[in-house]
Amino acid sequence: MKAINETHDPALKSWIESAESRDSDFPLQNLPLAVFRRKGKVEAFRGGVGIGDQILDLGATANTGVLKGDAAIAAAACGASELNSFMAMGPKFWSALRLALSRALREGADAQAALSGCLVAQADSEYDVPARIGDFTDFYTSLFHATNIGAQFRPDNPLLPNYKWVPIGYHGRSSSIRVSGDTFPRPIGQLRAADVEQPQLGPCQRLDYELELGIFIGTGNERGQPIPIGEAESHVFGVCLLNDWSARDIQAWEYQPLGPFLSKNFASTLSPWIVTMEALAPYRVPFSRPAGDPSPLPYLDSAQMRESGAFDIHLEVSLETAHMRKHGRPAVRLSTTSYRHAYWTIGQMVTHHTVGGCNLRAGDLLGTGTLSGPSLDQAGALIELTTGGKRALSLPDGETRTYLEDGDAVIIRGRCEKQGAARIGFGECRGTVLPALPLWHP
Amino acid sequence: MKAINETHDPALKSWIESAESRDSDFPLQNLPLAVFRRKGKVEAFRGGVGIGDQILDLGATANTGVLKGDAAIAAAACGASELNSFMAMGPKFWSALRLALSRALREGADAQAALSGCLVAQADSEYDVPARIGDFTDFYTSLFHATNIGAQFRPDNPLLPNYKWVPIGYHGRSSSIRVSGDTFPRPIGQLRAADVEQPQLGPCQRLDYELELGIFIGTGNERGQPIPIGEAESHVFGVCLLNDWSARDIQAWEYQPLGPFLSKNFASTLSPWIVTMEALAPYRVPFSRPAGDPSPLPYLDSAQMRESGAFDIHLEVSLETAHMRKHGRPAVRLSTTSYRHAYWTIGQMVTHHTVGGCNLRAGDLLGTGTLSGPSLDQAGALIELTTGGKRALSLPDGETRTYLEDGDAVIIRGRCEKQGAARIGFGECRGTVLPALPLWHP
Repeated sequence: MKAINETHDPALKSWIESAESRDSDFPLQNLPLAVFRRKGKVEAFRGGVGIGDQILDLGATANTGVLKGDAAIAAAACGASELNSFMAMGPKFWSALRLALSRALREGADAQAALSGCLVAQADSEYDVPARIGDFTDFYTSLFHATNIGAQFRPDNPLLPNYKWVPIGYHGRSSSIRVSGDTFPRPIGQLRAADVEQPQLGPCQRLDYELELGIFIGTGNERGQPIPIGEAESHVFGVCLLNDWSARDIQAWEYQPLGPFLSKNFASTLSPWIVTMEALAPYRVPFSRPAGDPSPLPYLDSAQMRESGAFDIHLEVSLETAHMRKHGRPAVRLSTTSYRHAYWTIGQMVTHHTVGGCNLRAGDLLGTGTLSGPSLDQAGALIELTTGGKRALSLPDGETRTYLEDGDAVIIRGRCEKQGAARIGFGECRGTVLPALPLWHP
Repeated sequence: MKAINETHDPALKSWIESAESRDSDFPLQNLPLAVFRRKGKVEAFRGGVGIGDQILDLGATANTGVLKGDAAIAAAACGASELNSFMAMGPKFWSALRLALSRALREGADAQAALSGCLVAQADSEYDVPARIGDFTDFYTSLFHATNIGAQFRPDNPLLPNYKWVPIGYHGRSSSIRVSGDTFPRPIGQLRAADVEQPQLGPCQRLDYELELGIFIGTGNERGQPIPIGEAESHVFGVCLLNDWSARDIQAWEYQPLGPFLSKNFASTLSPWIVTMEALAPYRVPFSRPAGDPSPLPYLDSAQMRESGAFDIHLEVSLETAHMRKHGRPAVRLSTTSYRHAYWTIGQMVTHHTVGGCNLRAGDLLGTGTLSGPSLDQAGALIELTTGGKRALSLPDGETRTYLEDGDAVIIRGRCEKQGAARIGFGECRGTVLPALPLWHP
């Protein structure tokens, strides 16, 4: 515990100058992980740690001999093109690597000479999805999102009776998950106009983003062996940004009775960086329910959860249209919110997922669902911000949006910030919509 | 095409005597694939082909030098512990291996001496899931199942308006899929009695099976590049038996609005053997719709599909209770049906899955959904056979069942049979329900 606290000391400085910039997402106290390679080189993706505007190549670091014991074993595992093996090692190894890197990257560290050769500039790098994602599960943990969406379908009864009891989730698609910088064609699907019986195949007309966090599982569980709430967080490796792109018109027609399918599986986009649970520790906040709401059932409740089971992570979504890019205009912020407003915590997601016997594996991804905040301007999707497309958003230069248009880039950012603690940033998650491909016929 | 037809000739006989037994699932015309190892030996799982009561070890076969060219390359790829690499090679290699093995296992083949040493008795073997399943998607392709289930919730309007237009599907859980012989504890979950507001955590009281076929994808597609209906079947590697165990009471409480989650993800069971699309060719039948039903949209329709896009695969489910095992009684057949009754074909599932841009990968699994036939006694799940648990089934010795009890084993079998063609069998898919684990509290 002393070691964990040591790495958070906001007075710690790194010998990497860019890590000391006030607005760096990656000071010495963060140390997020990604899988990267140098752009334009024929070389393998491998694990690295973000520090300032640099990446510390972990496989190369392991080869220097600077790290010892568990930290050396951990760094060597991160030399792989997917972090699954490191994720499966568990908190002892994650923590050992964090502490050793914190010390080695500190001002005055003996390791500076050896590690200087292990740095690659982020500007010269490209990223891959950081783990082989065996299964992707998307939850629905924002009461406000569930209520906003429900109100569009059932104005008098927006929230379903199970919501406050069950951490609602469903299985998503892992094959189509890509990393920030992603571009994808507008999806095609069956669309049905309100007044006709027969649907038509055509490009989605109501393409939306969803502001989410992604939770990477570290150590898994055996099938049939649920993870109790008191142990849930120790199975979690870290957190990233996630955009779960959604085709609202395809969804409306297909989703009964088995849930969303093609409306969600054409693309999902992750930030490259995974911020570890240890890095987030200073930003824990109490988990509470509105007065009058039921307490979670005992299997989803604990004193630790109530005391510090939630996280205050500031989130924001921006839109950059093709027009803005062409004319050099900055992206426009559409909304901001915080993860502290979620109705269900990370620990509750893990425990509920496994209570029936389902096994999680290292590298599995859990999405939080759209993280809309308490007021409508804090909503995490256009379907909420535009009230189902009824009220267009005004953008600079006379542009407007109800749903996404071709060429639109959506940028999600996240950070933790407060007095007396170092800023813990998430980098960015960017994805761009391309025009739909021409329709084909057999 | 000549080569393909050659392997189906019912007059062909094998030098492996057990393949000539009238009731063998695995004559020379079948040649299904599995991943196996000898029981009680410390050795790796690897690919093999079923022939009579034997398994031909494909890695060992490759090492004999008997196979040449594409067939040799294909057999070597099957030496791995997962068939994904072989699946990704495509129809040219699948077909070359089939033809070469058909010739090498034929009566009088020169290869007999070399291959005799590559045989392992099925009775001495155990199996694993034959591929690394990246994503598992479950469809809902039986109109009769959808209608039977719908009638329990909406007696006046059992079928939703999208059913005859959209091949309904949803993403399932890949981590908890196991192979025949599987045992798993009865799942625990949130259950809510009809007359109370608060749910309770407890063991599932309405545990059911679902009779399905599983479709293994061979070659995948790039994200954003849908597979046209005319090419869909060439991406399919083969077909197996699948039991998609379902907790009906957990499902009823959790499934709105995003679909089934914990009610399905605690366990799914596959038969070890994958019957290839080539082996099934003699059992193709026309795909048709009831008079008055809409034609599929153009992207889901083709002349080939109408002529021969469906398959006549006989399916049956049996139940073996703990009492039957204890007293040496045979399992009791609960229902039989055929895959020919499905409302959507394999090709339609593949094309619909990708039409929005979603990518499939080698080894992905598609479930057909519960394959209930036109009459209620052909239903593929207890919720239908017992009308939602209202009418118990009578079993020998005075036993009865509404839903599954602890110790119950469910056995699914499948086979194709007709005059003038060899029998193509699927082996069996067996799974057994164990008592729920004790409830824990944090």
